[in-house]
Amino acid sequence: MGDTQLSTKAQRTDVLDLLKQFSRIGATSDGGVSRLAASREDGEIRDFLCAWFKQNDFTVRVDRTGNIFGILQLAENGDGSAFYCGSHLDSQPNGGRFDGALGVASACVAALAIRTLCIAGKIDPAFDQFVVACWTGEEGSRFQPSLIGSAAFTDRISFDDALSSCDCEGLTLGEALTSINYLGKDTPPKPHHYFELHIEQSSGLQDANTPVGIVTSSWGALKCRISIVGRSDHTGPTPMEDRRDALLAASHLIIRANEISKAASEPLYSSVGRIEVLPNSPNTIAESASLWVEFRSPDPSSLRNAQDELEQAMCDIANRTGCELEAVRTTKRAVVEFDANAVQTVRDCWDAANISYLKMKTIAGHDAVNLQSVCPSTLMFVPSNDGISHSPEEFTSDEDIASGFEGMLHALSALISRPDQSQVCGGDFA
Amino acid sequence: MGDTQLSTKAQRTDVLDLLKQFSRIGATSDGGVSRLAASREDGEIRDFLCAWFKQNDFTVRVDRTGNIFGILQLAENGDGSAFYCGSHLDSQPNGGRFDGALGVASACVAALAIRTLCIAGKIDPAFDQFVVACWTGEEGSRFQPSLIGSAAFTDRISFDDALSSCDCEGLTLGEALTSINYLGKDTPPKPHHYFELHIEQSSGLQDANTPVGIVTSSWGALKCRISIVGRSDHTGPTPMEDRRDALLAASHLIIRANEISKAASEPLYSSVGRIEVLPNSPNTIAESASLWVEFRSPDPSSLRNAQDELEQAMCDIANRTGCELEAVRTTKRAVVEFDANAVQTVRDCWDAANISYLKMKTIAGHDAVNLQSVCPSTLMFVPSNDGISHSPEEFTSDEDIASGFEGMLHALSALISRPDQSQVCGGDFA
Repeated sequence: MGDTQLSTKAQRTDVLDLLKQFSRIGATSDGGVSRLAASREDGEIRDFLCAWFKQNDFTVRVDRTGNIFGILQLAENGDGSAFYCGSHLDSQPNGGRFDGALGVASACVAALAIRTLCIAGKIDPAFDQFVVACWTGEEGSRFQPSLIGSAAFTDRISFDDALSSCDCEGLTLGEALTSINYLGKDTPPKPHHYFELHIEQSSGLQDANTPVGIVTSSWGALKCRISIVGRSDHTGPTPMEDRRDALLAASHLIIRANEISKAASEPLYSSVGRIEVLPNSPNTIAESASLWVEFRSPDPSSLRNAQDELEQAMCDIANRTGCELEAVRTTKRAVVEFDANAVQTVRDCWDAANISYLKMKTIAGHDAVNLQSVCPSTLMFVPSNDGISHSPEEFTSDEDIASGFEGMLHALSALISRPDQSQVCGGDFA
Repeated sequence: MGDTQLSTKAQRTDVLDLLKQFSRIGATSDGGVSRLAASREDGEIRDFLCAWFKQNDFTVRVDRTGNIFGILQLAENGDGSAFYCGSHLDSQPNGGRFDGALGVASACVAALAIRTLCIAGKIDPAFDQFVVACWTGEEGSRFQPSLIGSAAFTDRISFDDALSSCDCEGLTLGEALTSINYLGKDTPPKPHHYFELHIEQSSGLQDANTPVGIVTSSWGALKCRISIVGRSDHTGPTPMEDRRDALLAASHLIIRANEISKAASEPLYSSVGRIEVLPNSPNTIAESASLWVEFRSPDPSSLRNAQDELEQAMCDIANRTGCELEAVRTTKRAVVEFDANAVQTVRDCWDAANISYLKMKTIAGHDAVNLQSVCPSTLMFVPSNDGISHSPEEFTSDEDIASGFEGMLHALSALISRPDQSQVCGGDFA
């Protein structure tokens, strides 16, 4: 970090310390964390975050899907405009400790740093408020769809639909949030810009030995829950030709989804990460199975083709196995371009500060993708070791976190500062 | 039922009543029952059975794997020889209400009926005791292997191995039995003959419009638990070629097991009824999967071939998916011939009583298969509607139960009666 350094050593240490404190909550024995959305552990880390906000003079608000907002006053422009910055604190089951949590920890410390810069007159803020957002249920592991809190906040889905989403035990998100006291009623400030720092979850930055990335667009996604109904029967005497085996049908569909993505001419990723089988007993033919199938691509037509081919595969497999297959929920996430002006602002400030960076796409969904639908949004990446994520092996070094925080402060300063009038208007009137 | 009728209307009603009372315990909304081995519901039905035994002057014994024995004295031959008759009261998750329970209900009422016939002088018993046996964990749904109680009783596995078998929550059979107060210490009488009535679980008797079947042999079985280890990672950004997806590997193996059985030249059934996936989250590539794979055949060489082909498939799939596949437990059940003299005795008495019957094989495993390794054992079948079993749709009509009980009493009378000396010795000495 050179002459243009914005962050202090104390601030960079604060980010690491806060992340370490987050990591203790829901810690697993192998270095990961399990903080499923609206679980006891999620409640514990939310309490910790709210206590931190209050200690640091943030005003705390909780909305109807449990999104938490820590609000810090930057200026009194009178328009109440709010600059949002955040990420999420829920995790995958035995997931990594950086995914989401690093973005929240960085946003917390950055809020205080930005206010200090404002008070010192080094930033003339164009926004009245700095809002640290902690979104509910980003991971989609317990409640679907993924990004459920920011989806409700940005009207991508209704609050009622979000709150009635059920986990595998039949508990709704609303009930789960109530049980941890985070079913709020507050209406937070309207967002005028959203910024998110996140680990890359791929190895692009590491491979290029580059500390930060600015994300220009996201891949689209197609996510389907497929219900398969067969018939329970004894695995012994039932003649093979009479069986309607839901697990066998599910296996065919899992392989077909993989083949569809391999055969695509455009990049098309696919996976089935979750399966539920009933009664799931060694001596009983599976009566039913549910599959969570997803496809991701930067090319919308490739996703449309994947959906057509998946539907054809479901028909073929139904004919072959005697089971009934049905898509009981289909979620589509469009290819999203992040605000180009903001991307340019960040690139310009990083160039000026001699921070090397990559322009990137995100394949993973992030809350920033939802926020872009209501305000200019910016997503930046820091490296993930070997690209591993959703795993206890997920890792980003202290040095990469420090470099990322420095890059983040530059980006925030540029995005939050009142634009230079001559620069905005350009040329002269002569 | 004609002139040779042995059962009374009251006895046949008693069987139906007792079965109905069993069916209420662990009843599910759609007419099935859920009484997993050593569960709360299993504890409840065991309490009910023991209370019934005591009301009817049986002596109750519970052995080290929770097998329950209700003992009724028939005679005082002085040799303490015991005629066993029974089945099991555990069920599949949402299984049928006849599987096992009908055998126990019939054995209970038959014990009293046989004693009455002994007291009336219509049977001269060759055995001192009639023992109604209720075996622990026949179904193999919660604790593996299947038939675990009778396997320990007959030294097919050690008591320690049986008691340390874990359910999917990591609870051992020993702990589960302790929690319902059925980890006993008793040593029951040595069995000199075992008899079991069971529903057919196939449609052979129904198709032939025949009330009872006598089973001459059982198919062999190969049961393997396969562990698959991949690597958890994000389902989004992880490049397709870098994924080690345990659920994809599991799907390949499920389909290969099915193909192996279809391609076999001898009858070979196969299924995978149970799968466990971790972390089983929509956005995370499966880190691990466990599969319960089984093959069944009347031909031992066909099972040996299936095992070889399964192992080859595991190697192929490991190479293809980058996952590690390992058979962590393999259980083999040999093809078993039931005692031929006993089969002939039953056939002769049914012929004499004008009861039509089929000679059959059993594809499903039964406790009688284990008992045949320590004493002559006899298995009889009654019809299953459309052959459906391990399902709430499992059904055997009251008429079929009554006919089955009548056939059972004839068989028991013949098997328990002291052999006619002239018949045993044959001819004369001249």
